[in-house]
Amino acid sequence: EIRAIVNDLHPADIAFILESLPVHERQAVWQLVSAEHDADVLLEVDDWARESLIESMDHQDLIAATGTMDADEIADLVPDLPPDVVAEVQKGLTDEERAQLIEAMGYPEDTVGAIMDFEMVRVREDVSLEVVLRYLRRLHELPDHTDQIFVVDRQDRLQGTLPVSTLLVQDPETQVSEVMTKDYLALNPLDSDADAAGAFERYDLVSAPVVDDQGRLIGRVTIAEVVDVIQEDSQEQALSRAGLQEEDIFAPALDALRNRAPWLLVNLCTAAIASVVASRFEDTVSHIVILAFLMSIVAGIGGNSGNQTMTMIIRALAVGRVTEANAWQLVKRELTVTFMVGTLGSVVAATFAWAISGSAAIAAVMMAAMIFNMLIGAALGVVIPILRSRFGKDPAVGSSVLLTFATDSLGFFIFLGLATLFLI
Amino acid sequence: EIRAIVNDLHPADIAFILESLPVHERQAVWQLVSAEHDADVLLEVDDWARESLIESMDHQDLIAATGTMDADEIADLVPDLPPDVVAEVQKGLTDEERAQLIEAMGYPEDTVGAIMDFEMVRVREDVSLEVVLRYLRRLHELPDHTDQIFVVDRQDRLQGTLPVSTLLVQDPETQVSEVMTKDYLALNPLDSDADAAGAFERYDLVSAPVVDDQGRLIGRVTIAEVVDVIQEDSQEQALSRAGLQEEDIFAPALDALRNRAPWLLVNLCTAAIASVVASRFEDTVSHIVILAFLMSIVAGIGGNSGNQTMTMIIRALAVGRVTEANAWQLVKRELTVTFMVGTLGSVVAATFAWAISGSAAIAAVMMAAMIFNMLIGAALGVVIPILRSRFGKDPAVGSSVLLTFATDSLGFFIFLGLATLFLI
Ligand SMILES: [Mg+2]
Ligand SMILES: [Mg+2]
Ligand SMILES: [Mg+2]
Ligand SMILES: [Mg+2]
Ligand SMILES: [Mg+2]
Ligand SMILES: [Mg+2]
Ligand SMILES: [Mg+2]
Ligand SMILES: [Mg+2]
Ligand SMILES: [Mg+2]
Ligand SMILES: [Mg+2]
Ligand SMILES: [Mg+2]
Ligand SMILES: [Mg+2]
Ligand SMILES: [Mg+2]
Repeated sequence: EIRAIVNDLHPADIAFILESLPVHERQAVWQLVSAEHDADVLLEVDDWARESLIESMDHQDLIAATGTMDADEIADLVPDLPPDVVAEVQKGLTDEERAQLIEAMGYPEDTVGAIMDFEMVRVREDVSLEVVLRYLRRLHELPDHTDQIFVVDRQDRLQGTLPVSTLLVQDPETQVSEVMTKDYLALNPLDSDADAAGAFERYDLVSAPVVDDQGRLIGRVTIAEVVDVIQEDSQEQALSRAGLQEEDIFAPALDALRNRAPWLLVNLCTAAIASVVASRFEDTVSHIVILAFLMSIVAGIGGNSGNQTMTMIIRALAVGRVTEANAWQLVKRELTVTFMVGTLGSVVAATFAWAISGSAAIAAVMMAAMIFNMLIGAALGVVIPILRSRFGKDPAVGSSVLLTFATDSLGFFIFLGLATLFLI
Repeated sequence: EIRAIVNDLHPADIAFILESLPVHERQAVWQLVSAEHDADVLLEVDDWARESLIESMDHQDLIAATGTMDADEIADLVPDLPPDVVAEVQKGLTDEERAQLIEAMGYPEDTVGAIMDFEMVRVREDVSLEVVLRYLRRLHELPDHTDQIFVVDRQDRLQGTLPVSTLLVQDPETQVSEVMTKDYLALNPLDSDADAAGAFERYDLVSAPVVDDQGRLIGRVTIAEVVDVIQEDSQEQALSRAGLQEEDIFAPALDALRNRAPWLLVNLCTAAIASVVASRFEDTVSHIVILAFLMSIVAGIGGNSGNQTMTMIIRALAVGRVTEANAWQLVKRELTVTFMVGTLGSVVAATFAWAISGSAAIAAVMMAAMIFNMLIGAALGVVIPILRSRFGKDPAVGSSVLLTFATDSLGFFIFLGLATLFLI
């Protein structure tokens, strides 16, 4: 029954559901998806979720799914596919498709070559629109997003483009050369995909031809790919400000460690160096001020760690991947991740505290306070944005003010509280 | 000569150039733009730049420019236009256009109604494709982004859509009803624009019909508007995390004050409250620790203020609006803005320092150190991302680590340095 419901959905909706499920459930639902959707769903899901899907498929399933794909789509999946599957699939391609696959694999990430496809309708300039119309009817189907037809010469050099709207409104007796546009935007396969996206946005394009240095038409970029580039880039930018990369918010907590820890460690080191700067002023500040510095490190790291969690959650909320049903699971996961990162970081911090204060008791207080405050930051990092969005407010606005306030106040409170209990 | 060069450009490029110029130069170049481009450029520039353009146009220019626009486009501009211009322009509209203008103005911001247009090709289901083709030829021109034609009944209720690609490949003898799609996505005018954008992204749409509660076709949304929504939302999200709204990076520094100050004041208050929390532990911490707290406020506010500047600059770099030619101007502007915000904030902070320490000298040191450290934050907020992008690196990655390190260390250094000089 669930199987029927799932398979009635658009492949993009199936992909979205899979992205919103914990790994175990994701693989279970994936088993229910019928083989005819496999290719579309695999192409649609985000990179971090695709791995867990491919893992749960056997050799035959993978070959069946990949066999129906275009060369440019196979190229996108190659990094995630087992080598023997790639070897077998490429045997089934025509010479032209194999050449396209090799070409598409050759362009570096973040270039136009990596997002272009090869589905183009080409015509000559010396025919009439009537001939073009008859030619299109013989194709039975046009590639997605065909808003223009490419006019090429015998050497495949691009001469102009024929917008479909021109084709529809002009007298069929007209020659292509009379009505084609010569004022088109052509991309180079090595242009950056972000620049191409800027051009699509600025000139309101639906598709653009890709030509090589000799002016030969080699591919096409469509707005569908461009929208994905825009979304990914804005996501990357938001995450990178908090020192993060995209992660599967349902992956085992251990996986998140690699993502979260480095930036917080850097942060801890810079905070330590800043305190050392301050400790050069021994005449001005009393020795007990070291406590105050350690305390401000506890407050700061709680804020930064909570900010990482919050950045993740705000992005997940923005794409609708967080629901009330899985909110509690997210809190648990973030607390686990943070506990691990915090334990790691607090060993570093405690060592530093011990070195600077010479007191093992202070080091122990530092360690406990830091872990505790980071856990508070993580819990608030999940709860604040979810509550704001629950009450119909934008989760991003002001969330970090609230978070910093809590981690600063509670950081001081916890550190001094523990110090009062155990040091005096 | 410059006039000729400017007027040869695409209106979207002219808009981009105007956005990249300081207000004075912007208005000078705007004078050179010929009247035929006025409407397109006004519609294309960002909201914050449009004001300064409209300001420099006289009544007649504005009416000429607005007179050529569609009803939905006029509706977008109404908030920025002088009321007498609006009154005169609406007189020139047909009854249908006037109804559309009123409808478009009625939908709240961030809804589908606010981004839809009224340029739709409608056909009946009981005609053949041949009839549709002949009808299109009589239109001479199709609306931009016409990838589908809307099939409506006599009451204008949407029955289905006819993709242009179907129209092109099917036998012209076929009836519309046989080949139209009934599985289309229709939007409601009160749907959120972000949800609509999500649907465009997920289903790779180029256009979508907008229908009212009775199922009547009232408008159309195109991918061009959707891409703008996606870009604006990601921009808003990045800025709102730093407590900012979009601002003209070339507007007088005073204008920026309203944007920057509120969040930093909130921040200052929460930091002060956090210190009060700590001061409750008088037994544990010595009185001199108050110095350490004030110092951490100086460090923190420098980081937050620098982060605002940096967020602005990273966004401006992302859209290519920062060049080496105007970098120095930006540094000067940011320093001016920050000096004003800093003076304001430091009065608040000094009052707090005076209240908590009872010493006017400490308050003075606090004030000087805070302004100084905020200026350092602002300068680095401009310089770090520009240098990173100059050397081909992503300006966002790691910038805030460097910034926080500098404002923390230098915040301590400056505060303690001044304290050493003047308090001891
Ligand atoms: Mg399956
Ligand atoms: Mg996706
Ligand atoms: Mg990319
Ligand atoms: Mg590709
Ligand atoms: Mg494709
Ligand atoms: Mg645009
Ligand atoms: Mg801080
Ligand atoms: Mg002008
Ligand atoms: Mg623009
Ligand atoms: Mg909006
Ligand atoms: Mg509008
Ligand atoms: Mg329009
Ligand atoms: Mg898509």
